Amino acid sequence: MGSDSDMPIVAEARNVLEAFGIPFAATIRSAHRTPQDVGLIVADGEVRGCQVFIAAAGMAAHLAGAVAALTVKPVIAIPLTSTKETAVNGLDALLSSVQMPTGIPVATVAINGAANAAYLAIAILALQDPSLNQALREHRVKLESKTREKAKALKAAGWPD
Amino acid sequence: MGSDSDMPIVAEARNVLEAFGIPFAATIRSAHRTPQDVGLIVADGEVRGCQVFIAAAGMAAHLAGAVAALTVKPVIAIPLTSTKETAVNGLDALLSSVQMPTGIPVATVAINGAANAAYLAIAILALQDPSLNQALREHRVKLESKTREKAKALKAAGWPD
Amino acid sequence: MGSDSDMPIVAEARNVLEAFGIPFAATIRSAHRTPQDVGLIVADGEVRGCQVFIAAAGMAAHLAGAVAALTVKPVIAIPLTSTKETAVNGLDALLSSVQMPTGIPVATVAINGAANAAYLAIAILALQDPSLNQALREHRVKLESKTREKAKALKAAGWPD
Amino acid sequence: MGSDSDMPIVAEARNVLEAFGIPFAATIRSAHRTPQDVGLIVADGEVRGCQVFIAAAGMAAHLAGAVAALTVKPVIAIPLTSTKETAVNGLDALLSSVQMPTGIPVATVAINGAANAAYLAIAILALQDPSLNQALREHRVKLESKTREKAKALKAAGWPD
Amino acid sequence: MGSDSDMPIVAEARNVLEAFGIPFAATIRSAHRTPQDVGLIVADGEVRGCQVFIAAAGMAAHLAGAVAALTVKPVIAIPLTSTKETAVNGLDALLSSVQMPTGIPVATVAINGAANAAYLAIAILALQDPSLNQALREHRVKLESKTREKAKALKAAGWPD
Amino acid sequence: MGSDSDMPIVAEARNVLEAFGIPFAATIRSAHRTPQDVGLIVADGEVRGCQVFIAAAGMAAHLAGAVAALTVKPVIAIPLTSTKETAVNGLDALLSSVQMPTGIPVATVAINGAANAAYLAIAILALQDPSLNQALREHRVKLESKTREKAKALKAAGWPD
Amino acid sequence: MGSDSDMPIVAEARNVLEAFGIPFAATIRSAHRTPQDVGLIVADGEVRGCQVFIAAAGMAAHLAGAVAALTVKPVIAIPLTSTKETAVNGLDALLSSVQMPTGIPVATVAINGAANAAYLAIAILALQDPSLNQALREHRVKLESKTREKAKALKAAGWPD
Amino acid sequence: MGSDSDMPIVAEARNVLEAFGIPFAATIRSAHRTPQDVGLIVADGEVRGCQVFIAAAGMAAHLAGAVAALTVKPVIAIPLTSTKETAVNGLDALLSSVQMPTGIPVATVAINGAANAAYLAIAILALQDPSLNQALREHRVKLESKTREKAKALKAAGWPD
Repeated sequence: MGSDSDMPIVAEARNVLEAFGIPFAATIRSAHRTPQDVGLIVADGEVRGCQVFIAAAGMAAHLAGAVAALTVKPVIAIPLTSTKETAVNGLDALLSSVQMPTGIPVATVAINGAANAAYLAIAILALQDPSLNQALREHRVKLESKTREKAKALKAAGWPD
Repeated sequence: MGSDSDMPIVAEARNVLEAFGIPFAATIRSAHRTPQDVGLIVADGEVRGCQVFIAAAGMAAHLAGAVAALTVKPVIAIPLTSTKETAVNGLDALLSSVQMPTGIPVATVAINGAANAAYLAIAILALQDPSLNQALREHRVKLESKTREKAKALKAAGWPD
Repeated sequence: MGSDSDMPIVAEARNVLEAFGIPFAATIRSAHRTPQDVGLIVADGEVRGCQVFIAAAGMAAHLAGAVAALTVKPVIAIPLTSTKETAVNGLDALLSSVQMPTGIPVATVAINGAANAAYLAIAILALQDPSLNQALREHRVKLESKTREKAKALKAAGWPD
Repeated sequence: MGSDSDMPIVAEARNVLEAFGIPFAATIRSAHRTPQDVGLIVADGEVRGCQVFIAAAGMAAHLAGAVAALTVKPVIAIPLTSTKETAVNGLDALLSSVQMPTGIPVATVAINGAANAAYLAIAILALQDPSLNQALREHRVKLESKTREKAKALKAAGWPD
Repeated sequence: MGSDSDMPIVAEARNVLEAFGIPFAATIRSAHRTPQDVGLIVADGEVRGCQVFIAAAGMAAHLAGAVAALTVKPVIAIPLTSTKETAVNGLDALLSSVQMPTGIPVATVAINGAANAAYLAIAILALQDPSLNQALREHRVKLESKTREKAKALKAAGWPD
Repeated sequence: MGSDSDMPIVAEARNVLEAFGIPFAATIRSAHRTPQDVGLIVADGEVRGCQVFIAAAGMAAHLAGAVAALTVKPVIAIPLTSTKETAVNGLDALLSSVQMPTGIPVATVAINGAANAAYLAIAILALQDPSLNQALREHRVKLESKTREKAKALKAAGWPD
Repeated sequence: MGSDSDMPIVAEARNVLEAFGIPFAATIRSAHRTPQDVGLIVADGEVRGCQVFIAAAGMAAHLAGAVAALTVKPVIAIPLTSTKETAVNGLDALLSSVQMPTGIPVATVAINGAANAAYLAIAILALQDPSLNQALREHRVKLESKTREKAKALKAAGWPD
Repeated sequence: MGSDSDMPIVAEARNVLEAFGIPFAATIRSAHRTPQDVGLIVADGEVRGCQVFIAAAGMAAHLAGAVAALTVKPVIAIPLTSTKETAVNGLDALLSSVQMPTGIPVATVAINGAANAAYLAIAILALQDPSLNQALREHRVKLESKTREKAKALKAAGWPD
């Protein structure tokens, strides 16, 4: 992540990764304030066997692109809103993340969509791991059940169904 | 892809996949005009061992989301511009693709970024295929060379360097 | 509706439907988390004689489009804002709802315009029900009166008229 | 429609209505240039048994709202692009059409989505006309077939499927 | 104004008009909920010698356009934000107000710019009233002084100048 | 106008002014390239009895605001598109023109709405000139007739009415 | 700065300038309310040896452009959000600042990016001042350290690294 | 510049630099395709005494930010439109360039505003070069004259002045 202010949102990704038992490492580095470190961390990640990189950043969110420029591993971007609310809040990060030039793709998820970044990473890892694939399928069933539970709660709250 | 008008853009993805020798299948189905078919094709794709789904669609681009709802495999969205030029041309497809709810991620690339959808798919597949990883690395070197060639051409055209 | 967080807004539609004595059923299903259920519910709705479907969803709001793909009954979309405030808040849902491809229309109302979704549904039902038509006309008269009451209150508050 | 420059787009609605054998009347009146006429035409439409009004307009597209203010029949808006290309081209008409106040709904379709305005009108009329309902269902089957034909053409063009 | 929720903003216009001693009348009518009343009020305004009309409305803000369609007097629009915060908050009203068709102009001021609507009206009235022109000039001098006072306060607060 | 590239659009204002026999003067000055000249021209305009200023400019369109800062006469802005097409084409000029601070109003018309700038100026001048008021009213009648002519042409072209 | 409401944001620039020991003068003048004063202050600044001008303004933010029109010194714009939250909040000021015509450049920083305006000014001044260049380099090292500190805090908070 | 497709626009900067006799070097490197090269070129530029860096890039335009991360010299960004026209054309590059985090400023000019990037660079260099300052002042006088020439041409074309 690009800053410690991103932590509350990125924690949603952490929760998902932990729930699925995915080993991961997290750190804070800015594409602009610590450009060399980003290179070192990506290189270190490669050495440590990192399969998927997730980068979370706001405003002119270059972090995912900077990582993608340094690895051929899949890179996922979480475009973030910033603490200063403006008419471009999060749109700046979305466009900075998704509008990548040909050859250097970044897999972009929703603005502040940290949990989905984790789910996407897991979907990628699950291609090599049948038990993870199974876990994802079970999670989908849970999502279904949860939605149906909400429907029941709606009914219980007096809505006709 | 959602329509045959999407073919010229999606062909850029095909070219990349073919250049890397990736087996793929392509078809046209609309999330709205042929909802059942989408389900059948996703199911058939699963049976045939499809590892990554790429969906290209414009306007209220639901195709990638509809596919993602039916599989836990990675799904990549190519948001497309439409033939009718408006103030939301491609932005509609981008937001319809990227703003997915928690649990059902879609990996979104740039508007009309079909080639990058293919590169992203290859990056995902390369996690299980060292030769593909190597091919991607070599492609990056080619991209570098190509950029440097352009720099030489710029110099040759009389620009001081 | 796509989620239980949509309930407070959708309740405005419920209030209108109840005020006009329109029988309705409400449930929660997500186009992405429960795609099969959406099909079942639409089919069940058809069997139960549902005349108009109203779908409320935020972000990449596919619910209305998913319903419209499965029925030829009129489908009304309520694009919702989401709990995470961004520069595309509600615009994403509006574009995901309204920019439908030819042949599969969705009747879209204002962002968070749940009450109007109900009024539109009633206007459609009133085509077959003279008393409903009459009730709508009376409601318009009430709207007029209410507006004129506000004008009187403005005058009473000391504004010259 | 608000102007004769809207005719080429609105003709797509006409084609659909004629294909389904729906009687309709079309005229040109501007909410701003001929406000009284709009009232007369809506009143005349009511007398003639008009069930659904479709209004097509660009820029500050008030026509649909002006019609909706005068009738409790369903009103469908086709937001149009204008001949002058700007950064708000069609977005102005979309927002002017869809963001209606509570009590006066307008059913808005896609920017330049004239054909869908007609399909939506037919869906509304079909609630009272089983043969029309049947025709709509058959049309959906044709849409499916057409999409599958495109898929075959894709295959014939050498794309692997 | 279109609704009583617009009162706090429109009060800024009232304050300016009263400060300059401009006689005015204010009322609440909606272009959509009370279309006939708008016509009556405009006609009544003409009879009473109204020189300038100011219309304040939010969302699909048709009020100024509806008034402008009924009079050749100058019409000023105040596009308003609405109570529901969305990504188009106020932009909808701005575009609905300013993008008028040729022949029916609306003089649009800033989103929520009620005070400026009053200043603009006064500038128009001042063309026929030298003392009002003088008052406006004096007001500009006051604005200058006020700005310079702020500069002094800045200095007093310890900022170097 | 800010540049000679603005001439074709501004010519639409000229045509309207000439059709109504309004004396006017036109020149080209940029708020940024000739700031002093703008002051001189405004001062000269005041001396020559100019009643209304119209400023046409694109991009960061400051011309209208710069004029409004120097006079208490009504100032009308025509926000222009620029020759370089971008995602903010004309929106930049619209926001730069309309979002003025309290006390210095600018009456803004549609993007490229030069004709309406003239109509608005005439509406302002007509407050002091009954024959101009009459001419405006007659013009409205002509607009009505013209619209009705278009409706007849539509019918003649085979559209049912 | 254009108004005293801009002070809290502009104070971030002041803090940076003071931290680097840069002499500066600050005042409040509006391009629209005090156009002559802006000219006097720019002229006075030139006389006092001002090397870089920084202008902070919101909405139709003309201040930077107005200054740039009067000097050939580098001019930096801080586009500000305004106190009234709208869908164009800060975007209006950004476009009004950055979209300058050829020949009169304005160096624009992020919306509310006051600190960066100061850093940019220092970067410009540092071209003539090796010790300032050194201070900037040291500041970058501090930024790096600070980011790494945050990474350590992340680890200390229990995130795996 | 990031790509050779940027050459026609960037040539406008070259023309300005040459007209003022500013020595410069130009090359093509992509922040994403050749991240290491960008570092080498910035380092080489520093060694060669480069005073100001200008970076031109489109879409997720990271080039200026990447350069700014590596130098404390002033960095100017030219956000570019891309060849693929979309609803975010150039806005993506603008936001990716201007919305930089605190501490790493980028001086952003208008979308496609290459000439102004050069003028801004010259303004910065002129701080150390009185003859360049003089040349800039003379250029401003020429801009004034040119604008006045256009005004004369307008008059000659029959416009009253």
